[in-house]
Amino acid sequence: MSRYSVEVRIVPREGILDPQGNAVGGALRSLGFDDVGEVHVGRLVRLDVEAASEEEARERGREMCRELLANPVTEDFDISVREAAGSAA
Amino acid sequence: MSRYSVEVRIVPREGILDPQGNAVGGALRSLGFDDVGEVHVGRLVRLDVEAASEEEARERGREMCRELLANPVTEDFDISVREAAGSAA
Repeated sequence: MSRYSVEVRIVPREGILDPQGNAVGGALRSLGFDDVGEVHVGRLVRLDVEAASEEEARERGREMCRELLANPVTEDFDISVREAAGSAA
Repeated sequence: MSRYSVEVRIVPREGILDPQGNAVGGALRSLGFDDVGEVHVGRLVRLDVEAASEEEARERGREMCRELLANPVTEDFDISVREAAGSAA
């Protein structure tokens, strides 16, 4: 078993209203960032887990998204995994 | 000028209390994800900008963090940039 760092990125699904993104986009433009296009705001979850392989760590991340982290109706997520520094192989 | 997709990841600075991360960690463990270690919850901002180069797009992202997106006292951020699909070079 090794420790893996899992990063989960959760964003509003394409086509779903993103009021927070719109607010941030408006604020950026009013600060002079005129050329900013669409803005989406999501959540980032970083955690580490014990797993036998990178693929298992990724699958644990997916389960966490389905059970708690992401709203399956309105959000999409993607996951990246890397072996944690100093992990015993 | 090309369009670049900029992704900004903002997380609580190392050593700063992260109550949201602690709450998510507790919830995951109570759902049976026993081996979850520390959890950090941050924000993810995806946007696109017009810029002459990838480095310029990254610098615009940094400015946005300093002026609006991140709290310079309590948060760290990192930025990744890629050329937007279908961008005119």
